Amino acid sequence: MAKESTTIDIGETSTVTKSTSHALVDEKKKGFVTAAPGGGYKRGLTIFDFLLRLAAIGITIGASSVMFTAEETLPFFTQFLQFQAGYDDFPTFQFFVIAIAIVASYLVLSLPFSIVTIVRPLAVAPRLILLISDTVVLTLTTAAAAAAASIVYLAHNGNANTNWLPICQQFGDFCQTASTAVVAASISVVFFILLIVISAIALKRH
Amino acid sequence: MAKESTTIDIGETSTVTKSTSHALVDEKKKGFVTAAPGGGYKRGLTIFDFLLRLAAIGITIGASSVMFTAEETLPFFTQFLQFQAGYDDFPTFQFFVIAIAIVASYLVLSLPFSIVTIVRPLAVAPRLILLISDTVVLTLTTAAAAAAASIVYLAHNGNANTNWLPICQQFGDFCQTASTAVVAASISVVFFILLIVISAIALKRH
Repeated sequence: MAKESTTIDIGETSTVTKSTSHALVDEKKKGFVTAAPGGGYKRGLTIFDFLLRLAAIGITIGASSVMFTAEETLPFFTQFLQFQAGYDDFPTFQFFVIAIAIVASYLVLSLPFSIVTIVRPLAVAPRLILLISDTVVLTLTTAAAAAAASIVYLAHNGNANTNWLPICQQFGDFCQTASTAVVAASISVVFFILLIVISAIALKRH
Repeated sequence: MAKESTTIDIGETSTVTKSTSHALVDEKKKGFVTAAPGGGYKRGLTIFDFLLRLAAIGITIGASSVMFTAEETLPFFTQFLQFQAGYDDFPTFQFFVIAIAIVASYLVLSLPFSIVTIVRPLAVAPRLILLISDTVVLTLTTAAAAAAASIVYLAHNGNANTNWLPICQQFGDFCQTASTAVVAASISVVFFILLIVISAIALKRH
């Protein structure tokens, strides 16, 4: 307990004279001495958090737009049919594009909070808000990636029991593009897990 | 800055006069005495955490076993074929059964940690371990639920563009059972989000 509260004091109050009682001044001094490491590594964490968010923005925008532009038209056609595959032929891929776009927007909106935590590495509220909303958005990202992955798997392998034939033999490029988007979304899932771990460590006492 | 650290102190020390000069001894006493108010709502949180885990164990075991036993044999057959659908006809459903069973085992193993946090509501380490592992397992649960959901959706609606026909017209009971398992897994996802929020709140200072 003693150690804990000391550390907390230190991080935020090192430059302020809190004056009146001996105990307080005493604590402050202790705080001042030990402040650097505690606040220091937390500030490092928050900067890492910010950079991770920037990277995640890039990856999610990439995943969403790659899936959005996934389209392939086969070079042969009959009188009535042209063979074409696009992301909008699969409701799951539509969900993927929309969900990952929402995730990217969320990440952009979360940047100011991340900056606040860089400026004030020991502030609790923005950190808690980030952790909780990151968790919810992690769920959305994972759901989009997993649902799309199961459809990509089906497109590659088909399912003999239900007579769902693989379409990747015909639409190889389309499948390739969709797989890329799924992989990118999966990487962003890892980023979100890291962000949550960072928030948890930054949030914990001492 | 100063205000914040004051607040932090208060959270833990409100009933104690802080003025005596033996700072360390004093603080230790404060920690002991003031565990009660801060510890009080935190203890409530940890008990809620424990109950949520018990509920999540029930739901995940239910989801996994319901999906495992999902099977339907149609009452007619040809000379060569019997029409049958089981969870093992779909790789995604196999993944679902295994993943959700792993999640249920994890939840059972996490109970001791949860009990530790009930006994010591202010302990940081078990709380942090729970938060991080809950986040990873949340990802696994969400992935299993979303992947299975996209296959269930396909089984219900089919996909005209790829000529994947819906099978739920024939295997209505099977689809119903699989849907139930997916819904149960989705509920456990909500439980995990709640568990993470609880851990975050219990972990934060003051």
